[in-house]
Amino acid sequence: MAQELSKSHFINLKQRTMYNFEYQNPVKIIFGKNTIPTVAKEVPTDAKILLTYGGGSIKKTGVYDQVKNALKDFKIIEFGGIEPNPHYETCMKAVEIVKSENIDFLLSVGGGSVLDATKFIAAAALFEDGDPWKILSEKAEVKAALPIGAILTLPATGSEMNGNSVISRVSIQEKKAFGSSKVLPQFSILDPECVFTLPDKQIANGVVDAFIHVMEQYLTFDVNSPIQDRFAESILTTLIEEGPKVLANRKDYEAAANFMWSATMALNGLIATGVPQDWATHAIGHELTAFHGIDHGRTLAIVFPGMMNLKRKNKKEKILQYGKRIWGITEGTDDERIDKTIATTIEFFESLGVPTTLTEYNVPAETVEKITERFKTNGYKLGEKRDIDYREIEMILNDRW
Amino acid sequence: MAQELSKSHFINLKQRTMYNFEYQNPVKIIFGKNTIPTVAKEVPTDAKILLTYGGGSIKKTGVYDQVKNALKDFKIIEFGGIEPNPHYETCMKAVEIVKSENIDFLLSVGGGSVLDATKFIAAAALFEDGDPWKILSEKAEVKAALPIGAILTLPATGSEMNGNSVISRVSIQEKKAFGSSKVLPQFSILDPECVFTLPDKQIANGVVDAFIHVMEQYLTFDVNSPIQDRFAESILTTLIEEGPKVLANRKDYEAAANFMWSATMALNGLIATGVPQDWATHAIGHELTAFHGIDHGRTLAIVFPGMMNLKRKNKKEKILQYGKRIWGITEGTDDERIDKTIATTIEFFESLGVPTTLTEYNVPAETVEKITERFKTNGYKLGEKRDIDYREIEMILNDRW
Repeated sequence: MAQELSKSHFINLKQRTMYNFEYQNPVKIIFGKNTIPTVAKEVPTDAKILLTYGGGSIKKTGVYDQVKNALKDFKIIEFGGIEPNPHYETCMKAVEIVKSENIDFLLSVGGGSVLDATKFIAAAALFEDGDPWKILSEKAEVKAALPIGAILTLPATGSEMNGNSVISRVSIQEKKAFGSSKVLPQFSILDPECVFTLPDKQIANGVVDAFIHVMEQYLTFDVNSPIQDRFAESILTTLIEEGPKVLANRKDYEAAANFMWSATMALNGLIATGVPQDWATHAIGHELTAFHGIDHGRTLAIVFPGMMNLKRKNKKEKILQYGKRIWGITEGTDDERIDKTIATTIEFFESLGVPTTLTEYNVPAETVEKITERFKTNGYKLGEKRDIDYREIEMILNDRW
Repeated sequence: MAQELSKSHFINLKQRTMYNFEYQNPVKIIFGKNTIPTVAKEVPTDAKILLTYGGGSIKKTGVYDQVKNALKDFKIIEFGGIEPNPHYETCMKAVEIVKSENIDFLLSVGGGSVLDATKFIAAAALFEDGDPWKILSEKAEVKAALPIGAILTLPATGSEMNGNSVISRVSIQEKKAFGSSKVLPQFSILDPECVFTLPDKQIANGVVDAFIHVMEQYLTFDVNSPIQDRFAESILTTLIEEGPKVLANRKDYEAAANFMWSATMALNGLIATGVPQDWATHAIGHELTAFHGIDHGRTLAIVFPGMMNLKRKNKKEKILQYGKRIWGITEGTDDERIDKTIATTIEFFESLGVPTTLTEYNVPAETVEKITERFKTNGYKLGEKRDIDYREIEMILNDRW
């Protein structure tokens, strides 16, 4: 998972001092009730727009009509049907349209999947160094991209305020991420009322996704960064409080707004300033999605407890701090506190209706072998210390039956 | 105090729901040890630069030499001597140089005063609607400004990541603020080692200034905005912990870094998203500076406890929350808890060496009359509910003998 907005310079992996960093996030956020029609003020008037969307839920919820009404004087071509865990193959069809129709602005209307796809389309359309798959497979530099605007209908990924994108290539069962400031949205419109029509499963997945985004930047080895820690804890606590309220009453605007803003804050570079970052849970989770199509948020709920358990020594200080400040766990030996912290985290995910074991998703044992083999072959090492290789990945997954 | 980065739309002053808002902050932050030389990569190579600075401390600390070495191949004209609470008269001299020398980039090297002056110079140099004083006195729109870069030597004002500026016109004893996204720095370089050479008084003033910046956006009537509240509390707690460490050991890099990043976060629009804002303490404090030249941070330490005392009903929920979450005050009646919260806040300021009464600064009684008269004449009403007029201002000040 790229974190282009906040480039921290790792001086020394044992260092306790905050790292040097660069931080810049120019995305314009337009947040609140009835903000969708303001899109007309944000898109360049002479633009030829590709409106990207997903499976059509925006037509049922009325968001599509709001956008079309607001942009009735604009030149728009539509590209629907972007799937969850958006496919490279689908994106490349959109790239053809962008080129043949001389599209010069991309408007994403949907959740993180639609926006991630739109970012890849924006970069791939102007990519000049061969096959755009290289942006994902080889981290080829994105030198230019078409401008993007976003109307977000589902709080979860934080894609609305970052330059990250995750794309799946179904033909080879691969799921890959890239990050570039070139694909930052020019603007993102966040109307919390979009939450009102979401099914339980998407709310729960979104809460877990945002929660783990925070964890990947927070639950690392200990660095002296109290502002970043407390901001991270602020987001965690708010997700824990507001997530269940949203599930219980989908029309609770206040809870929806707080949930939505939490998810954006969870992955906009802010809490990543000057601190190590993990992203092992995401990397392993992506494999579960690649092989079995398990929802992204759910893969994180499976993997994360196993990662905490395996890294209980490396991350000891932070796990204890997390247990104490977030869950009030202060009694017992360090190991007992860590056990209780892991168990409480699992309970939280399950309370949202998210199963957390491989068994519950009917994942076969061979999948663990396949994933292990993949990491053995590519030699990737994960985690903030790059000390999680295929053997640790196997242990993490086998902890989760 | 303008808050251009975060435009919240006040729908209803009694509303408990988070307000609609727009948020955008494109400032590039470059943070850490030995970052000053990177200025050469940030300034356009063909720029003709006006290097602005203050009373010359940058020459003693070595910052001046670092900047000059880094920019030895650039065209630079220097403009030193910008005073604390920078003068309109001084700024206008710089504007003349900008025009006669065809300056096209302003580089501020110093604290908030130098940067505030630089922002006004940037706007005044391109102002075409008459006397640039109107930018301050009449809030005339800033339609254009020269680009600005900043090297920050003193954490306090947050000016490095916002579009705010406060300027004093000594001839008429007035101190006025303006805010515009046009004067946002293109980049701000924050090297915490700059803190190592600061005198105690500037550290203490900086801690109080950042603390009250948070308070102006946090200690308002209660709105359902848990993320913004907790971010605010994160900054307050960190200032309370790290400020004394910086005072005790000026070479403590970790404390210096945490203090510096706290001060930036305190006023960059982030914690202002979707919530009411007060700024009465600042408005009254500016008058004490205008009449007596009292350091800005110190005026805030005088005024703020009086403001809390007067607004103990309006702000009751938030004062109780602040007392509980920041100072652990949970016992007694609401009024007893509020009294203790005010007293503890005063103790904190005094523990930093900042006196908090008008008496201690030898302010004469007539000054209260003059300030009251000024607000009676201009009719301004302060506070997040615009319910503090000249009578309340008199009460706030007379609470602080």
